[in-house]
Amino acid sequence: MNRTLIIYGHPSPDSFNAAIAETAKRAVREAGGDCVLHDPYQDGFDPVLSFQKSSHPITKSYVRDVQEAGGFIVIHPNWWNQPPAMVKGYLDLVFQEGVAYQFPEGDDGSSAPEGLLHGDAALVLNTADTPPERQRELFGDPLEAIWRDCVFRLCGVADVQRRVFAPIAGSTQEQRQAWLDEVDEAVTTFVRENGLASGG
Amino acid sequence: MNRTLIIYGHPSPDSFNAAIAETAKRAVREAGGDCVLHDPYQDGFDPVLSFQKSSHPITKSYVRDVQEAGGFIVIHPNWWNQPPAMVKGYLDLVFQEGVAYQFPEGDDGSSAPEGLLHGDAALVLNTADTPPERQRELFGDPLEAIWRDCVFRLCGVADVQRRVFAPIAGSTQEQRQAWLDEVDEAVTTFVRENGLASGG
Repeated sequence: MNRTLIIYGHPSPDSFNAAIAETAKRAVREAGGDCVLHDPYQDGFDPVLSFQKSSHPITKSYVRDVQEAGGFIVIHPNWWNQPPAMVKGYLDLVFQEGVAYQFPEGDDGSSAPEGLLHGDAALVLNTADTPPERQRELFGDPLEAIWRDCVFRLCGVADVQRRVFAPIAGSTQEQRQAWLDEVDEAVTTFVRENGLASGG
Repeated sequence: MNRTLIIYGHPSPDSFNAAIAETAKRAVREAGGDCVLHDPYQDGFDPVLSFQKSSHPITKSYVRDVQEAGGFIVIHPNWWNQPPAMVKGYLDLVFQEGVAYQFPEGDDGSSAPEGLLHGDAALVLNTADTPPERQRELFGDPLEAIWRDCVFRLCGVADVQRRVFAPIAGSTQEQRQAWLDEVDEAVTTFVRENGLASGG
């Protein structure tokens, strides 16, 4: 099973993020890969982890896709240098203990967890309105550490690449098309280099 | 108006985070301050920002409290080196443009925003299960940058302090009580040093 899982989170189907997701999906297929897209906004996913209620019915199929994925593509805007709450809640609920990572037997939860994901490569595509120089100077890049170190490497996905498209605000049609061409190229390379084409 | 706003996010009223919130509330009052607590889990807040629906009715009163607060205390667990989705969505929806920050007139949203918050001090209290040494080595500390640089300083709150209580997993009753004593002391100092006592 070498399917690419695209995790996409933006509330508007007319957004540039939606165009990135569409481009990524097509690029995976054109490179000969299989692909499934999780769109928690579209699916009406409830991102709130609560101990009082059971999780949204789609959680089970999300979990199965995460376990089976051969590679991951994550697409979302930078909101407060974090993912939108919808994507954060997807992590809280789908990347569960026992699915994405586990603690050594008998451990109380303070030891180093072991990654459980089968896929071993991830590509993170973010949009932002802050230009790169101001981003580095004022904020560092918390999203880079979050996805690379705190999520994927912890879950056993060693190879994590990331592209940031910014600033979206005020960008021209030509600039956006050039960014989509970059997405197409990055995804094609990702599929080929990670053996994610169906015959790979 | 020098009220302290406590923003608290944990799904369980029996959690150590709940005990921290209770201790913080009491300490603000005992130090002579006024305090309001936002508990979006308890309030059934919907953290999903969507362009298709209006936000949860409580959003308006949350916004007013944020605008009027003289100081902020934020309390939540570290989940994936980020706040729970519920707290992330509170940021997405309550710390709106025009409330927490604004762009220069005529700007397209890519310029440096100006902070609008009236309060000028924040205290962030986080719990975690990862011991501090492993935290630094593997992850850095994205939550520190998120709250200090990406949220509060951007919104005009210059003085941001943070305490992390870890590891919670496996901690003894005595250790937890010592941590609550630290919370009491930190909050008391916060109220006194920032003129948040009612007469201050």
